[in-house]
Amino acid sequence: MSGVVVNFENRNQADTSIELLMQLVADDMQRVNALILSKTGSDVQMIPEVANHLIDSGGKRLRPMITIAAAQMCGYEGDGHVTLAASVEFMHTATLLHDDVVDESDLRRGKLAARMLWGNEASVLVGDFLLGQAFRMMVDVGSLDALNVLSHAATVIAEGEVMQLTTAKNLETTEDEYLEVIRSKTAALFAAAAEVGPIIAAQPATTISGFRSYGNNLGLAFQLIDDALDYGGNSKKLGKNIGDDFREGKVTLPVVLAYRRGDDKERQFWQDAIVSEKNDDNALDQARELLHRRDAISDTVLRARHYADMARDALDRMPNTEHKTALIDVLDFCVSRAN
Amino acid sequence: MSGVVVNFENRNQADTSIELLMQLVADDMQRVNALILSKTGSDVQMIPEVANHLIDSGGKRLRPMITIAAAQMCGYEGDGHVTLAASVEFMHTATLLHDDVVDESDLRRGKLAARMLWGNEASVLVGDFLLGQAFRMMVDVGSLDALNVLSHAATVIAEGEVMQLTTAKNLETTEDEYLEVIRSKTAALFAAAAEVGPIIAAQPATTISGFRSYGNNLGLAFQLIDDALDYGGNSKKLGKNIGDDFREGKVTLPVVLAYRRGDDKERQFWQDAIVSEKNDDNALDQARELLHRRDAISDTVLRARHYADMARDALDRMPNTEHKTALIDVLDFCVSRAN
Repeated sequence: MSGVVVNFENRNQADTSIELLMQLVADDMQRVNALILSKTGSDVQMIPEVANHLIDSGGKRLRPMITIAAAQMCGYEGDGHVTLAASVEFMHTATLLHDDVVDESDLRRGKLAARMLWGNEASVLVGDFLLGQAFRMMVDVGSLDALNVLSHAATVIAEGEVMQLTTAKNLETTEDEYLEVIRSKTAALFAAAAEVGPIIAAQPATTISGFRSYGNNLGLAFQLIDDALDYGGNSKKLGKNIGDDFREGKVTLPVVLAYRRGDDKERQFWQDAIVSEKNDDNALDQARELLHRRDAISDTVLRARHYADMARDALDRMPNTEHKTALIDVLDFCVSRAN
Repeated sequence: MSGVVVNFENRNQADTSIELLMQLVADDMQRVNALILSKTGSDVQMIPEVANHLIDSGGKRLRPMITIAAAQMCGYEGDGHVTLAASVEFMHTATLLHDDVVDESDLRRGKLAARMLWGNEASVLVGDFLLGQAFRMMVDVGSLDALNVLSHAATVIAEGEVMQLTTAKNLETTEDEYLEVIRSKTAALFAAAAEVGPIIAAQPATTISGFRSYGNNLGLAFQLIDDALDYGGNSKKLGKNIGDDFREGKVTLPVVLAYRRGDDKERQFWQDAIVSEKNDDNALDQARELLHRRDAISDTVLRARHYADMARDALDRMPNTEHKTALIDVLDFCVSRAN
């Protein structure tokens, strides 16, 4: 753990890069990646093929990086954080494989979704395999408390997905109800990822709850910014890879706000687009116009900033080190993506 | 229900008064007040004495006004909303009587607390009596759904109070944990108060959840602003009736933020003040200085504004009427109190 002291007085200075985090965790992440590679191995050849298709597709690995950074920050000196980080990434990957089946997605991170290449059945089952491996790795670490946190997160994530099924295409969803979904679907894993480091480093309960709160609120901010980015974020110019949520009829916060704030004509548009799936490129253009007219994107970003602020305060009790700077950079990075 | 259409385009215009609300509910509130008076009656003379001491002490009756306004807004035409409003106020009064005993408070709304005049036992038991009357009134209305919502709120409020006992004087409380407490302790009753109107007016589920969300987020904003006001709000001038939370050693959000953001010396100050009860007027002055130095008051108000914004959007699906204006005025009134 580095002892460099960083000046935190200027809370408005946004360093919008996660380079510092990547530097600090680089060595341990090499070990995480090697472990991931070895744990996707199986005599059943399809398993490593399907798993590595997604694992190699260039995700940022933000969740395992947070596990590593939190453990380092708490002075942890064993190997357990590497194993837990890999298991967090497996849980995330399993969720993505299952999500693509549930959402009938064709693409994931700009590549064909695994289900398009190997079918739905393989995606579901390889997801289950990864989840199983994730649990085995957690058990290897031998911390019942960490196991408790991660297995609880696994249940909550599944609950969130089921909740989302029941609220799917329901434009009358309130912001509170939507928050409940993403609290389970996204924030729970971020919270667990941040919490297990201090747990295996045998930190006091107050440190653990600080990291948990950091992860939880980072997860909320992260998901809301993702929601905003799917419509191009605050920029009115047309970006790449936008409109996935729109085409899948997902009711995310920008849509919740624009629908609630809209007049009858606008609400009819959203009904046609989301429920009746009139969601071609023209409809997407119009959706973006309505979102901006109702400040739905900029207010989604503002809401995200609130959770990022909460996450920042959750870390306030930790000493000012490079690691703390890195974790706070993640918040700024996360929110600034939307501009 | 009035059909006047109000222009909502200018979302930044803050009307900081609740006069419109008071006008709209004035007639029904007279009936609520008469009912409250009649239902505190008992052959046991001490009961009306204790109950009316608090009931007559000039609370704004915000919660029952919200019940009445929500029911009117949904076109409800019976008498049930008057009864439910009285029962909401009784639940609130019972909580205050019990709170004063738990917190060992001497004053309530500038008058001697009931427990100082009649003792702790009477305060506890009259609180129980009012809670009993509240349930009897709910039953009178005959709506099982409304009963379900209000009885659930009663349990949640009690849970929140117990939760607060266990987090009392714990300066390491995270913002998330504190939110959990006020979500139960304060927001649950506001949510129920807003929800029962549309319920007895047989509104669709989406309308009911919109009102519930309005009440819940108004409750959070209301409590956070109360917390800020207890230290004088954003004004640096010395106001009246400040410092109650400080002297009772309550860990509210301003303290959570100032403690987490403070340096070692500041944290020692908070330990001395909150845990070791070194909380004289000099200490209060210093507390206020530290709160402002760490932006803890202004950020508490910012956090409250976030919840007020959520509450506003929760009502967006309702037609633009005077009643809607009145309920949104309540949000602006609530947040603007802090300045």
